[in-house]
Amino acid sequence: MANSASGESMIARVVRVIDTFGVDRTVQTASEIGRRAGLPSSTAHRIIDELVDEGLLERDLEHRVRLGTRLWELALRGSTALRLRQAALPHMESVQAELREHTQLAVLERDEALFLERLSHPDAVSNITRVAGRLPLHASSSGLVLLAHADPALRERVLEGPLRAVGPNTITDPAVLRRALAEIRRSGFVSAPGSIEAVSTGVAVPLRDRGEVVAALSVVLPREAPVEPALVALRDAAARSEADLRDDAPLTRQ
Amino acid sequence: MANSASGESMIARVVRVIDTFGVDRTVQTASEIGRRAGLPSSTAHRIIDELVDEGLLERDLEHRVRLGTRLWELALRGSTALRLRQAALPHMESVQAELREHTQLAVLERDEALFLERLSHPDAVSNITRVAGRLPLHASSSGLVLLAHADPALRERVLEGPLRAVGPNTITDPAVLRRALAEIRRSGFVSAPGSIEAVSTGVAVPLRDRGEVVAALSVVLPREAPVEPALVALRDAAARSEADLRDDAPLTRQ
Repeated sequence: MANSASGESMIARVVRVIDTFGVDRTVQTASEIGRRAGLPSSTAHRIIDELVDEGLLERDLEHRVRLGTRLWELALRGSTALRLRQAALPHMESVQAELREHTQLAVLERDEALFLERLSHPDAVSNITRVAGRLPLHASSSGLVLLAHADPALRERVLEGPLRAVGPNTITDPAVLRRALAEIRRSGFVSAPGSIEAVSTGVAVPLRDRGEVVAALSVVLPREAPVEPALVALRDAAARSEADLRDDAPLTRQ
Repeated sequence: MANSASGESMIARVVRVIDTFGVDRTVQTASEIGRRAGLPSSTAHRIIDELVDEGLLERDLEHRVRLGTRLWELALRGSTALRLRQAALPHMESVQAELREHTQLAVLERDEALFLERLSHPDAVSNITRVAGRLPLHASSSGLVLLAHADPALRERVLEGPLRAVGPNTITDPAVLRRALAEIRRSGFVSAPGSIEAVSTGVAVPLRDRGEVVAALSVVLPREAPVEPALVALRDAAARSEADLRDDAPLTRQ
């Protein structure tokens, strides 16, 4: 219904409009949105007008457009992402207070690690992740944990590559990656020095709901820092988050 | 374009579908969604199918529907709400660590206070707010601060009422509310004992970006607790958040 001449649905075109916004692009003109979304100008303007009417986009006095707080509310209010994040947040704060390094929560979303939360410390090491940002599964410590516990079909798809090198020590050999994933399942954690950036080591553990891995908890350490204290703190935070999830309704895909 | 027989746009119908989800309703059947959205069953099913195709909704193995993580990502990634929250979060953590009470960040959204963040403490007093939850402007301490600094037209609309009593001490008299708002603008804070719940006092201060009030920072104290330490902590956190916003791009509606 409501398909364009190209057969694309109205909802697909709305997604293309909203997808033009990003961390470094929070305000755009309607023309910029149309160009970036690859939509005819009249179509883009009509969709933007409707989204503004519903509060999903907002216009400023100079007619520039930004994402609406109403969109934020609709997306979060009933989301399992928010509930998972609320269960983990107090325990992530404890990890961050103890280690004074970036502490992160990630989930698997469309073959990538999507970061639901990131607590930062002013003195912490460099870190490229952001809330609502993504990293490749094979390169980030969070992604490796999620991939190790993912559906086998997804795992095989990622193993088929290409496995792009992000940092100097990113695993790019499928056979090495397969062994690393088996080792993560056995040991229950990963330490990935230099996989994203030369100066840092990602350490991640799985977070389970009713036995199923639903997220990864991670910290980013300076390359030379000891891994063991971080691992102890992460495992404790994961266990406490899991206990809070058990007291709550289930979050797993059933 | 793509309007239904009732003249309602496709986007308006999508909003009605997503709006059926909430904090206590994260999983629904397609039929429940259709009924709650007031849409014909065939229309609801078609919209849900399209939203699932785009990842904005997700289906579990029992064909029940939940909000998609992709929707969460699209709504957050480029949002000013996220940027405001990221600027305030470290300083909210300091407030919470010192006071050990609920610490909250709220913005004005469609004539209500919408809560962008809430940090809780296990020992803290009762508190009904939730992330992505709303409270009336005249009843919550955050709402009172936002209302005091809101556009005069909005303020007059709220003053015209009705001013519903939420707690035993909610201001329901327009003349009293008008004086209270003037006092908030003069003093730069509000303390609202019993306005939401008999057992608690909300304390809130404004948070400015380039001189304009864009949010309220608040804590919920036990009714008998002293207000002064909370006020000092909140003002300090607001000043630090404002400094971090200055270092960032502007958030105000220009």
